[in-house]
Amino acid sequence: MIIVMKPEADQAEVDRLLAQIEAKGLKPLHMPGSERVVLGALGDERVLAELSLEADPYVESVKPILSPYKLVARDLHPHDTIVKIGDASFGGGRFGLIAGPCAVESESQLLASAKAAKAAGARVLRAGAYKPRTSPYSFQGHGPEGLTLLAEVGREVGLPVVTEVIETADVELVATHADALQVGARNMQNFALLKAVGSVAKPVVLKRGMSAKVEDLLLAAEYILAAGNDQVILCERGIRTFETATRNTLDLAAVPILKKKSHLPVVVDPSHGTGIRDLVTPMALAGAAAGADGLMIEVHVDPATALSDGPQSLYPEQLLALGKQLEAMLPVLGRSL
Amino acid sequence: MIIVMKPEADQAEVDRLLAQIEAKGLKPLHMPGSERVVLGALGDERVLAELSLEADPYVESVKPILSPYKLVARDLHPHDTIVKIGDASFGGGRFGLIAGPCAVESESQLLASAKAAKAAGARVLRAGAYKPRTSPYSFQGHGPEGLTLLAEVGREVGLPVVTEVIETADVELVATHADALQVGARNMQNFALLKAVGSVAKPVVLKRGMSAKVEDLLLAAEYILAAGNDQVILCERGIRTFETATRNTLDLAAVPILKKKSHLPVVVDPSHGTGIRDLVTPMALAGAAAGADGLMIEVHVDPATALSDGPQSLYPEQLLALGKQLEAMLPVLGRSL
Amino acid sequence: MIIVMKPEADQAEVDRLLAQIEAKGLKPLHMPGSERVVLGALGDERVLAELSLEADPYVESVKPILSPYKLVARDLHPHDTIVKIGDASFGGGRFGLIAGPCAVESESQLLASAKAAKAAGARVLRAGAYKPRTSPYSFQGHGPEGLTLLAEVGREVGLPVVTEVIETADVELVATHADALQVGARNMQNFALLKAVGSVAKPVVLKRGMSAKVEDLLLAAEYILAAGNDQVILCERGIRTFETATRNTLDLAAVPILKKKSHLPVVVDPSHGTGIRDLVTPMALAGAAAGADGLMIEVHVDPATALSDGPQSLYPEQLLALGKQLEAMLPVLGRSL
Amino acid sequence: MIIVMKPEADQAEVDRLLAQIEAKGLKPLHMPGSERVVLGALGDERVLAELSLEADPYVESVKPILSPYKLVARDLHPHDTIVKIGDASFGGGRFGLIAGPCAVESESQLLASAKAAKAAGARVLRAGAYKPRTSPYSFQGHGPEGLTLLAEVGREVGLPVVTEVIETADVELVATHADALQVGARNMQNFALLKAVGSVAKPVVLKRGMSAKVEDLLLAAEYILAAGNDQVILCERGIRTFETATRNTLDLAAVPILKKKSHLPVVVDPSHGTGIRDLVTPMALAGAAAGADGLMIEVHVDPATALSDGPQSLYPEQLLALGKQLEAMLPVLGRSL
Repeated sequence: MIIVMKPEADQAEVDRLLAQIEAKGLKPLHMPGSERVVLGALGDERVLAELSLEADPYVESVKPILSPYKLVARDLHPHDTIVKIGDASFGGGRFGLIAGPCAVESESQLLASAKAAKAAGARVLRAGAYKPRTSPYSFQGHGPEGLTLLAEVGREVGLPVVTEVIETADVELVATHADALQVGARNMQNFALLKAVGSVAKPVVLKRGMSAKVEDLLLAAEYILAAGNDQVILCERGIRTFETATRNTLDLAAVPILKKKSHLPVVVDPSHGTGIRDLVTPMALAGAAAGADGLMIEVHVDPATALSDGPQSLYPEQLLALGKQLEAMLPVLGRSL
Repeated sequence: MIIVMKPEADQAEVDRLLAQIEAKGLKPLHMPGSERVVLGALGDERVLAELSLEADPYVESVKPILSPYKLVARDLHPHDTIVKIGDASFGGGRFGLIAGPCAVESESQLLASAKAAKAAGARVLRAGAYKPRTSPYSFQGHGPEGLTLLAEVGREVGLPVVTEVIETADVELVATHADALQVGARNMQNFALLKAVGSVAKPVVLKRGMSAKVEDLLLAAEYILAAGNDQVILCERGIRTFETATRNTLDLAAVPILKKKSHLPVVVDPSHGTGIRDLVTPMALAGAAAGADGLMIEVHVDPATALSDGPQSLYPEQLLALGKQLEAMLPVLGRSL
Repeated sequence: MIIVMKPEADQAEVDRLLAQIEAKGLKPLHMPGSERVVLGALGDERVLAELSLEADPYVESVKPILSPYKLVARDLHPHDTIVKIGDASFGGGRFGLIAGPCAVESESQLLASAKAAKAAGARVLRAGAYKPRTSPYSFQGHGPEGLTLLAEVGREVGLPVVTEVIETADVELVATHADALQVGARNMQNFALLKAVGSVAKPVVLKRGMSAKVEDLLLAAEYILAAGNDQVILCERGIRTFETATRNTLDLAAVPILKKKSHLPVVVDPSHGTGIRDLVTPMALAGAAAGADGLMIEVHVDPATALSDGPQSLYPEQLLALGKQLEAMLPVLGRSL
Repeated sequence: MIIVMKPEADQAEVDRLLAQIEAKGLKPLHMPGSERVVLGALGDERVLAELSLEADPYVESVKPILSPYKLVARDLHPHDTIVKIGDASFGGGRFGLIAGPCAVESESQLLASAKAAKAAGARVLRAGAYKPRTSPYSFQGHGPEGLTLLAEVGREVGLPVVTEVIETADVELVATHADALQVGARNMQNFALLKAVGSVAKPVVLKRGMSAKVEDLLLAAEYILAAGNDQVILCERGIRTFETATRNTLDLAAVPILKKKSHLPVVVDPSHGTGIRDLVTPMALAGAAAGADGLMIEVHVDPATALSDGPQSLYPEQLLALGKQLEAMLPVLGRSL
């Protein structure tokens, strides 16, 4: 329920209503605006009806929130949320490039790849210490040591870092080392993990599940916001379809739909979205043109020896070229790298 | 690697080779057969090559395991695995019916539904205490209290119980109350959870993910077996496709393929697989005809008031009728309820 | 619009109303029942409103047809339609087996395969003279000569024949040689072809398109019925999904849904539906158990040399075994081969 | 088979070999290059082996064509094909905008929409006279009268026209009125129609089928080229997936893959690809950024009254704005409108 207060309502009246909402077992939201205050109440709306808020002398109007996701919807929050990872901003016209190798493999590999990312204009370094792998016999990541190494390399090159967390028990450790946490596609509906990352004070990059509808992704984000963390970046990374020419089908139309339905920033991952190096650059440009607030791209100094995802990793010079193309194209579209 | 021993190899030779395999950091497997002993070695096969097992005087032949899943494949394990939940058997010609409400709602609802399940021939009671829900505002289950209630009702009606676990931290608690653990479709690639259920001594019902290929499901099962638990039942419950007439598309061809590639039993869930009550019975019969080792079906004494999945829950009399049809049809197909 | 006449309405009243409906440019339908007469009127229902049929003294009630397909829906036609191909009946509890090779290759191949089909209990012989092939360089069928050969072999073994027509211009020729026409999956929305087969007096087997929803299939059938031919058998033959373990994903839930929504018989093609010989028999049994009115199966005397679809063709002895299993299973399900 | 001639081979030697190829029942191709002549031979390559071309004194090398599509592949034709519709060029760095209403409805509607298209920079006018519709009761187009009207309006505003042909029998008539023929998604594997449009001297816009893989689309184009018409433009218009937020899932990665595998130009249809007006502009820009050679967009002067596809038609001012954005963005990407 969205409650718009009358202009004359002062803080005492606002507090009184918030307390009433809370007393009914609902979650109160306080959204002070430039002209008037808006309150929200989440939960069973039949309960709220008992308060007869429409009759309150300080309430101008009451209307239901129709979308199933309340906190991520634009209804209650019409302006773009800008999420910051270190100094990098995503959303509200700000475009950010996240780049790095798929996995933390060794110090030399990571450092060289991180330097390549930075040289190309990346504002955030990505690399996985915990790798969710389809087979138990594939490289599973270096775990805690990988985390430490990633944090060190990030400091050395001067970039904040984002890395995946795959288990509730690891959330705290990952949050102490990384500037942002990533929830991977396979865990998009691991609701325990969503609640856990919702309780830390670090931004979260939430990747769309392979069979998740746009609405499922927004509801997954809702879990994180409902747990108290509104620093969420949504990431389109491709869905599963019958097409076998690409690893996944990158659903770029999800970008403008997500932006329309939600205030959260949206980034595109053309590396996992295509699985093919030659397609990464055109699909990165396409993602930017479709309205994305940023990109997440795999780069590796030696893709042929990568322990995972080599075939989709750009060479450093390809990322450099992409950075230049983005620099030229984004201003034409009213945004900047 | 599969190592076939010569007929003259005695236990001492077998132990010697198993020790050599282990010393190389590989996982040794011992498979004594009626005619001769077969050993397995899992891990990096290049390492194994250093042992030159082909040259060993007690080794008849050495051949690689080609499938990416080693423990669940029929290569190393040609006979059907029979998994038991309480007294109910699944696999090897034994067909088991698992039934119950979607969620533990109340004692009276659960007890009445459990009695209906038993009356219809169910050998295992199902009901969820932890419910993974797409929306954070949907009923999330009664948690630990639901577990206790489920165990009590199971004892009262005399049926073993299976229930879903959605979080690594809950595995131990669920394992103390339930006779079998279920990993849901959304968690099929929650690898931390797979490893956790792999370390308990209870059977696991592993549901296929909504966008999981048959191979992905087998590799997810491989995580559980590789962690030490070979009591796994695979469950086909529908995949996501463009068809909107049903909640999911029940991929029954997965049943004979899974049975061909793996020794693990396979059950079918036509309730989630269709989402529509009227389709549950025909698709249950179709699943049995396709070769399934059992069924998992939702039944509710009052579907109209169910807190979740009411539209796909059978009425008790419908389950009773289905039980009778299965009883008549299974013997024709060479199996029995 | 469905118009239920009062019991006292005689033929003159019925004729008067049918004429009124036709005069408005709508298509009148006459459905005499055992107790009373029901009329239908297809077209723009706003036009019909001008007739004020509710006020007619011989009309009991008027209600709109809600489904977008009028003629194939059960609303206007609650009883199963039984379609006959030669002596073989499909629908209304009658189960028919259609079998034969994918393509007419040679007289000896066709004759031997036809005998195998008949020996196994097939009531209709199938084989393609015109083959729609993804590549222009694949075998395209023997065309008119293949048609003649098929008709001859059908007569020789005493089975009616069904064969695919892929082009409007060929409809007449195919209809003179074959007892039933097949519209293939790729042509399910070739509306010109649907209209053409709708104007001949031969039954039509209409295969579901690879990306066709159940509703799309029903609307495609509606084209044929609207053109005047109500002898249509619907065929589920698999849809395109992300799963690559099978050629297509056989959507057996479509069978009970189609039967629920439409009065037309439904057959299942497990050969194209799986693309894998070993899966044909289990999925054929599953299709029968799901409620299909028949099966369409590829059999070939020498699959290894087949010019198309060899890997999915049963050997004669496999079809024979399937025939016996169907004979045993169908009576349990209340039907007979 | 690709046959590279030695530099000293003159025309007589080339003619001799082409005649030999033809005599074997294969299709000969003559591809004179700047440095040396390359010949092609299409058909059963075992037959060609009998010619022992490798041993010919004027032949430098012979190598097989590995891709299943021979004529559309880049192997035999490394340079971009530029297809012209009237004065508009597609391919080879030339970008063309095709716009117009979904259907020819009336002269005033068509003329106003055509003027809007031209004002926005469209170089080709599109509108359907024959409409393939899922339901037989939907508007099916004005047929021959629509064709005449379209040709007149095209002449009046000075734009070439493209329109869909849905039936082999209509190909000749459509070709006399239109500057280019369109084969719709539902007919992409209507092979009779593909052969028919392959025999006329007009460019063909071939739309990807809803469940067609990239390879299926290329093979469909191969039918047209093999029939003698190499003026083919491929069109990505969205595929069927589980996502219901959009009408189809626009698979933009198909653009760079098609361009890599084939020399044919590729255009994107974001109107059918999304089905939602607000998504058309961002996805049009994304398509251009992904490397498309043009766009096909629906515009209507009064979408609310459109007889088909109103919800996805741009308003004239929206198309105008898109035209300006393309004008600004394309030069940055090295192309021009």
